Amino acid sequence: MSDSVFLERGVSALKSDAIVHLGNFFGALKGSLDGQDLYARSNFLFIADRHYLVDFDADVDLKGRNHALVRDFIALGFDPQRTVIYRQSDIRELFTIMWLLNCHTPAKELLERKDFTGAVDPSLAQVLYPQLMAADVLGLRATQVYVGPDEADHVAYCREIAGFINGAAESLVLPPPRRRGPISENMIMGPGGARMSQTNRNIIPIFGDERAIHRCFQQIPVSKVRRREPINPDDDICFNLFELMATGDVAAELKTKYLEAEVDQDEARAFVEEQFFKFFSNAREQRKQKSMSEIDVEEILQSGQQRVRREMRNTISILEDMLYYNVGSKSSRAV
Amino acid sequence: MSDSVFLERGVSALKSDAIVHLGNFFGALKGSLDGQDLYARSNFLFIADRHYLVDFDADVDLKGRNHALVRDFIALGFDPQRTVIYRQSDIRELFTIMWLLNCHTPAKELLERKDFTGAVDPSLAQVLYPQLMAADVLGLRATQVYVGPDEADHVAYCREIAGFINGAAESLVLPPPRRRGPISENMIMGPGGARMSQTNRNIIPIFGDERAIHRCFQQIPVSKVRRREPINPDDDICFNLFELMATGDVAAELKTKYLEAEVDQDEARAFVEEQFFKFFSNAREQRKQKSMSEIDVEEILQSGQQRVRREMRNTISILEDMLYYNVGSKSSRAV
Repeated sequence: MSDSVFLERGVSALKSDAIVHLGNFFGALKGSLDGQDLYARSNFLFIADRHYLVDFDADVDLKGRNHALVRDFIALGFDPQRTVIYRQSDIRELFTIMWLLNCHTPAKELLERKDFTGAVDPSLAQVLYPQLMAADVLGLRATQVYVGPDEADHVAYCREIAGFINGAAESLVLPPPRRRGPISENMIMGPGGARMSQTNRNIIPIFGDERAIHRCFQQIPVSKVRRREPINPDDDICFNLFELMATGDVAAELKTKYLEAEVDQDEARAFVEEQFFKFFSNAREQRKQKSMSEIDVEEILQSGQQRVRREMRNTISILEDMLYYNVGSKSSRAV
Repeated sequence: MSDSVFLERGVSALKSDAIVHLGNFFGALKGSLDGQDLYARSNFLFIADRHYLVDFDADVDLKGRNHALVRDFIALGFDPQRTVIYRQSDIRELFTIMWLLNCHTPAKELLERKDFTGAVDPSLAQVLYPQLMAADVLGLRATQVYVGPDEADHVAYCREIAGFINGAAESLVLPPPRRRGPISENMIMGPGGARMSQTNRNIIPIFGDERAIHRCFQQIPVSKVRRREPINPDDDICFNLFELMATGDVAAELKTKYLEAEVDQDEARAFVEEQFFKFFSNAREQRKQKSMSEIDVEEILQSGQQRVRREMRNTISILEDMLYYNVGSKSSRAV
């Protein structure tokens, strides 16, 4: 599943402005939820407020946003006893790790790639985004990264950086991480027909208002077919979303209905909406509980911070020993 | 002398592999020594071991090298009560400051300049060297940087970065630093006739062996002139070095001798060598004292570290307040 000698350790993240939605849930968080069961206490989930601040000045309530996200995580089933939840900006060691990685990264690996930043006149921080993500992941010595297929290149980049470090050290000091898409390798499409994302303004928010969510589902395009002709389920966004939220049996049953032309446009949308409210009923219920507002989020984040900073300090020691005591050969670095 | 509202604060540095020599003394350290008298406790001098490690794997005795440099500083007259002496790698806040600067630096300011790194296949750390230097300087909110004229571009770059920060904040939060060449605006030339530097292998080491130093002076080129014709003192490396180490009267006296053709090649070299041993006699004497080896260098560095980390944390607060509470306008940043 991942490179042998290292204990499995998974990491996922959302930016401070993220709204938990069908797309990032099945693209990233669901994998992390599985990781929580598989690798308790070796599963990490953080709020990427440093990444957020690269592109945005913070509003006054950045802290409130971060706290709300932690409550979302808990309502979705994340358990701070098994998943280390933390806030990126609490990790003071992060940029030191990034620098140590910089020392072993040929500049051209990053700078000669044009695909990483779409900004017209990017800041240095925007250009260095993949390197900070590498620090996030390699600093934890994570073996698995739960992100959607749109982030596959960034995870591949993390692997490259791990390769430079291991090459310089002439031993396997950092695990080359792999991306784990939780369920589907395909992009998750949303209302309007584009990839579901906040940028595309077509998300279906898990904790959103019932009527607003209904309107979202109504905006999912369904191919218009003649009477008694079937809608192709494989090409149907509604069916694809339904499949993510249903057991194999239930999905197979609906697929049969599709193929037998028993599903029209309105029904396609109604089935997936119904399944959505079934699948997330518990999470939506939890999120509204009074107990949710009473959770001491700062305490959770402080505890996460302590654990992560300990891990990051270990990584710094590993990298500095390598630099300071010349474990690696000089020739393997760009000098 | 510098931008008004800020208290004067000076900074200088040498890399861990530096050997204190005539060139870096008069190019940088002499200015810092003057700063010690002018701005006691606001004068900073550090050993740039992070910069050193960008280009070199450390030998096992990096710590010993760093300690020896601190002893050199003290022998030269630096007083830890008035000059804050510290080791760059002790400052854990440094890379966070660098990141916060990155958020406000258009990438092209650094990446489109080809003059900053001469390396063929540079590492990211090598490319980012000027940005780390900006963190060193702006993190301290230094107003003056004591470096030689060869570093003028880097100080100009620091000023630019301060400008971006101040622009984003719409107020003067970081002083734009100025370079102060202590005495001469000219490059200091050495044996063989090239700029005196370790890279050029033509330094005259202040604490070197007497006979080795004699050989260095013997290698300074002096223009061959006919009998009874004067050597031009202004073009003469020996006289230029002599001037750095002599009072105005003494230098004027020798200049007259030059102009009256009373100085031949051998004498030119002999005069400057004699002046060297006179000028540095006290420092060289101090450096050999038993008391020097008894100095608790770590204690000095720890005390320096505490002071500098306090300053850097203040700078982080200033920069984070700016980012977090939207003091600056979004439009002034490259997004």
